[in-house]
Amino acid sequence: MVDVAIIGATGYGGIELIRLLKPHPQVRLSYLTSETYAGKKVSEVYPHLAGVDLALSAFDAARAGQCDFVMLSVPAGKSMEIVPSVLAGDARVIDVSPDFRLRDATLYPRWYKLEHTCPELLAEAVTGIPEWHREQIASARLVAATGCYSAAAQLALSPLVADGLIDPGDILLDGKTGISGAGRTSLSLAYHFPEADEDVCAYSVEGHRHGPEVVQGLQALTTVGVSVTLTPHLVPMSRGILLTAYARPAGGADAAALLDALRRRYDDEPFVHVLPEGTYPHTKWTTGTNHCFIGAGVDRSSGRAIILAALDNMGKGMAGQMVQCLNLMMGIDESTGLARSAAYP
Amino acid sequence: MVDVAIIGATGYGGIELIRLLKPHPQVRLSYLTSETYAGKKVSEVYPHLAGVDLALSAFDAARAGQCDFVMLSVPAGKSMEIVPSVLAGDARVIDVSPDFRLRDATLYPRWYKLEHTCPELLAEAVTGIPEWHREQIASARLVAATGCYSAAAQLALSPLVADGLIDPGDILLDGKTGISGAGRTSLSLAYHFPEADEDVCAYSVEGHRHGPEVVQGLQALTTVGVSVTLTPHLVPMSRGILLTAYARPAGGADAAALLDALRRRYDDEPFVHVLPEGTYPHTKWTTGTNHCFIGAGVDRSSGRAIILAALDNMGKGMAGQMVQCLNLMMGIDESTGLARSAAYP
Amino acid sequence: MVDVAIIGATGYGGIELIRLLKPHPQVRLSYLTSETYAGKKVSEVYPHLAGVDLALSAFDAARAGQCDFVMLSVPAGKSMEIVPSVLAGDARVIDVSPDFRLRDATLYPRWYKLEHTCPELLAEAVTGIPEWHREQIASARLVAATGCYSAAAQLALSPLVADGLIDPGDILLDGKTGISGAGRTSLSLAYHFPEADEDVCAYSVEGHRHGPEVVQGLQALTTVGVSVTLTPHLVPMSRGILLTAYARPAGGADAAALLDALRRRYDDEPFVHVLPEGTYPHTKWTTGTNHCFIGAGVDRSSGRAIILAALDNMGKGMAGQMVQCLNLMMGIDESTGLARSAAYP
Amino acid sequence: MVDVAIIGATGYGGIELIRLLKPHPQVRLSYLTSETYAGKKVSEVYPHLAGVDLALSAFDAARAGQCDFVMLSVPAGKSMEIVPSVLAGDARVIDVSPDFRLRDATLYPRWYKLEHTCPELLAEAVTGIPEWHREQIASARLVAATGCYSAAAQLALSPLVADGLIDPGDILLDGKTGISGAGRTSLSLAYHFPEADEDVCAYSVEGHRHGPEVVQGLQALTTVGVSVTLTPHLVPMSRGILLTAYARPAGGADAAALLDALRRRYDDEPFVHVLPEGTYPHTKWTTGTNHCFIGAGVDRSSGRAIILAALDNMGKGMAGQMVQCLNLMMGIDESTGLARSAAYP
Repeated sequence: MVDVAIIGATGYGGIELIRLLKPHPQVRLSYLTSETYAGKKVSEVYPHLAGVDLALSAFDAARAGQCDFVMLSVPAGKSMEIVPSVLAGDARVIDVSPDFRLRDATLYPRWYKLEHTCPELLAEAVTGIPEWHREQIASARLVAATGCYSAAAQLALSPLVADGLIDPGDILLDGKTGISGAGRTSLSLAYHFPEADEDVCAYSVEGHRHGPEVVQGLQALTTVGVSVTLTPHLVPMSRGILLTAYARPAGGADAAALLDALRRRYDDEPFVHVLPEGTYPHTKWTTGTNHCFIGAGVDRSSGRAIILAALDNMGKGMAGQMVQCLNLMMGIDESTGLARSAAYP
Repeated sequence: MVDVAIIGATGYGGIELIRLLKPHPQVRLSYLTSETYAGKKVSEVYPHLAGVDLALSAFDAARAGQCDFVMLSVPAGKSMEIVPSVLAGDARVIDVSPDFRLRDATLYPRWYKLEHTCPELLAEAVTGIPEWHREQIASARLVAATGCYSAAAQLALSPLVADGLIDPGDILLDGKTGISGAGRTSLSLAYHFPEADEDVCAYSVEGHRHGPEVVQGLQALTTVGVSVTLTPHLVPMSRGILLTAYARPAGGADAAALLDALRRRYDDEPFVHVLPEGTYPHTKWTTGTNHCFIGAGVDRSSGRAIILAALDNMGKGMAGQMVQCLNLMMGIDESTGLARSAAYP
Repeated sequence: MVDVAIIGATGYGGIELIRLLKPHPQVRLSYLTSETYAGKKVSEVYPHLAGVDLALSAFDAARAGQCDFVMLSVPAGKSMEIVPSVLAGDARVIDVSPDFRLRDATLYPRWYKLEHTCPELLAEAVTGIPEWHREQIASARLVAATGCYSAAAQLALSPLVADGLIDPGDILLDGKTGISGAGRTSLSLAYHFPEADEDVCAYSVEGHRHGPEVVQGLQALTTVGVSVTLTPHLVPMSRGILLTAYARPAGGADAAALLDALRRRYDDEPFVHVLPEGTYPHTKWTTGTNHCFIGAGVDRSSGRAIILAALDNMGKGMAGQMVQCLNLMMGIDESTGLARSAAYP
Repeated sequence: MVDVAIIGATGYGGIELIRLLKPHPQVRLSYLTSETYAGKKVSEVYPHLAGVDLALSAFDAARAGQCDFVMLSVPAGKSMEIVPSVLAGDARVIDVSPDFRLRDATLYPRWYKLEHTCPELLAEAVTGIPEWHREQIASARLVAATGCYSAAAQLALSPLVADGLIDPGDILLDGKTGISGAGRTSLSLAYHFPEADEDVCAYSVEGHRHGPEVVQGLQALTTVGVSVTLTPHLVPMSRGILLTAYARPAGGADAAALLDALRRRYDDEPFVHVLPEGTYPHTKWTTGTNHCFIGAGVDRSSGRAIILAALDNMGKGMAGQMVQCLNLMMGIDESTGLARSAAYP
């Protein structure tokens, strides 16, 4: 049994961590923090978490640092404030904020309008994608969970870039996300039910923050310069991301070749499933789970490769990813507490 | 470990049973039947069940009868054909069809246009509501899971009828359900996305089949004649039932008294949660789970009591209910495999 | 051509009035007010109203009073501030706030926590239901559009109460509404897409403000004391109200008798449509229109009458109702600008 | 007044034409055909079309040919059977099937698995995009309405291709559509509410039939070879298409230059609206209308141009487009009966 803290326990990310970790056989949720609801029990804030009578506290770095693991679900800029003092204790950290995702500190002012306050930790942080960084995660002191679009994109494209089957210099990512990704505290007209319902729109058209994470991840696999266009869209559903990736196949790769490369890489993975040729993923297959489904085809007219990945932005794109990393860091079966398939339909 | 068969394994009820039982620590899914997909693996029919490589077979009564438990998720009229021969083996049966729900065989022609073919089993069948029939379920040979509306209504009203706090002779049930209740094979214009989306409508206005189940359940608790009006409505969501029950409070019962009675009955129950005064249940709190939330208030103008219950029609209203019964029949902790709270939002 | 002002032109009610009145052949939209967006054009606030280059101004009573008609779409308490000074000019007023709906001024503190500041106008105000108050509306100086639930309930039940076919002393109204009724400025967690999506819940369980409007309307048609329980529910769609009314039939009225009475009353009405026996209304039939569909049946078990009405809360429940009244007050065909049926599906 | 026939009047396209043309001041709906419902009235098939008491007949070419205009809303392969005999009368034809969209008859076997039976008409058929073919439509005998994705793509990209601002040899179109596009008669598991709700997926990944229409349209505007990848996606809403087009800007065009070119072309158009820089279209702005909104930006990292167009697949993408063409062919104001903006929200 390990002691785990969740910092930011009452956001959507926080309660998903609680949902996954409460029944986890080797985890004790020993410290849950919430600035808004300190002093209350979780079940008072969220009646659906009936029976989760854990108390919420204000954040205290010393107390967090005494836990074995500290999982952070806080906004950009907050983790870099907190993490150095938490690491000063004995705790190991899994952070879902963007604060430790990018190795190059100069990207933070550009993408987040933030000056990084502990750039020395960036080199140490390990990207939370077990399928590509399993060993580093297992021994890491600081894991930076990757963003939801980035998780989908890296899982879909990394094998193809690594094997030289697509041209990394011309990658287009068209993302479609459910609205839970907007979080809970940011009430905005854009997420007001009557406005968001029966609507599709693009956002961050000039550039989305998960783009540089994808570039960083793919660039590590190739010497060819990586270029990525990432355009996200809001669709009227709560959860789920479908990422449609477009790339030029290299060396005459057809759908079968793309799928072969994906299968070679993922056949033993418990959470990444490569579909048969002609089958393409649905976000609904992933709702509430840590699973990711990948399909690939080639457009007959243009010859462009189209690789599709579906995952739950709150699952493999966030809390599920963090728990999978936690399991690895604990040295236990990485599927512990995550094996369930989706409630369908 | 027990051997469990699922008859009708590829309908929505069947795959929900698979989802719940696959990771169940004391269950071996040893026989899954599907007339449509016999010969295939589950994961070939439902790609989201990746890794569930169990084979589907055509139904054979002898083979089913060799399992310890047989769970039926088949249409009305089918279970009465199958169950006698299954019981002739050693198996115990949990049936989610209506075929063994009603004690009075004469109700079948009226409500189901079916002549009952094994009425002698009706007296033996136990209603699958653990909160009210725990001991009988534990030793039952044949459990009849109750319908989704009926589960909500009986959980909400039984304590109040038993304690004489509402008038059983004048009960109105206004039900709102998600569309998964329509099942998978019954493609119909009413469930075609463009027609059902952004729409609410009533159905079975002259009388719904779950009504007599509610009457039977409540009548067992009171000597006053029970009368129930049940009007169901279709709302544009996949899962969930909200039942709004209206009744005249007896003996001056106010909201506090109603809630007290509910709490006395359910405080130790793992899956039925009585809300504080002024809080009312949301179906979303129950999605994918076996939980049921109940709230109660009194209309200030008319003095009418309003009792609200939310549950997942595929969970506590179907597959979850069946698994809870299975656990009881196995003599193990009835929460086994069911403890999870809802993925929210 | 008449000059029309819209006060509160940028709320959902205001823009629905603009949508209906912009192409109206005998209306000039000459004064649109918005406190938030004064100085902008409508099309700058709402890009979908491309081409509606009307300017928005801050409210000025004198200027409003110079218009022929002033249509108010402002919150409770605001209309009673404004209307006396508007009426001091030559304008006639159509108000969608609750401020002039109730004849009895003492109901305002109870239901709205407001002391009425111009109770002398309450006797003069005419309820905006043309089917029941056509002549008074035609000559009115002040029309109070009725609430969305109230419109549905009064249209569904008035003929049956007037003809003595149901017992007015025991009426239950179970309302289901789309979320646009919450308006645009009241961002709240309850209307945040991820929370409201895939959810049904009740609200105002102890009593909803439209209840006393229904009582007032029905009581005028009978000497028997009217009692109404109104319980509204939120369903995951933008527009539409389905009202399910339950009442005891009087004098042995069956479904045919109920439908006959409804048909006698509404057969010549352009916007109220009584359905054949066995057919029940869908909210989707009314989206974006001024139409209302009514069906009725009798529960076989309990004998309870069930009358169902569907309308668009923003149409017949609000802006459509106001425009129909405007047409009547102008002395023109009351269908002008309203004839369209719903875009389906 | 002209006499108009609608062939296939009870599909979703047919009833949308009825909705638009019933109140059209210069149209008499004189012949409505339906093979399924011949002998019934429209309002018996669709209760929401209360008051539309027009009779439905089986198709007869001679009778159709006597109308002034025949509007066809029938499946691929059916129009080529019917149109020659209709044109043999005096009628002029507006067809929404794909049968006359492609000039090159050899494309039909490839894309539609159909041998064209009257290829001699292909040269005569005019594409139903008034903004680009206004004069030809006005005098046409046979107009082929373009597909919904194609309408969005051609409106978004034609000005940029014509002005040489993007590279036509490398165009990617990522489409997102509501599910009404699937039509009414094709009940399928993919459109069953519980499966389609809360889901996004791609379809026709290897190539969609609207692709060659886009190529044909754009190729007419440039000497550079056009290449298009079109990948459509299903999103959980009834109506609306958002098309996200990706292209390399030519000659250093930035967002302002792209928007300028679009504005130059569309500033006087009543139904195509170019948005300010930084504003991007929403499908909800177009629901139930003939309007199309276009925005454009440039990805800061990759320099790729992103052009977004939103329209209603049943409006500008189908029935609205047909009515606009009808107005042109009649020689009247092309906005007649189409001016309304969307019911929002």
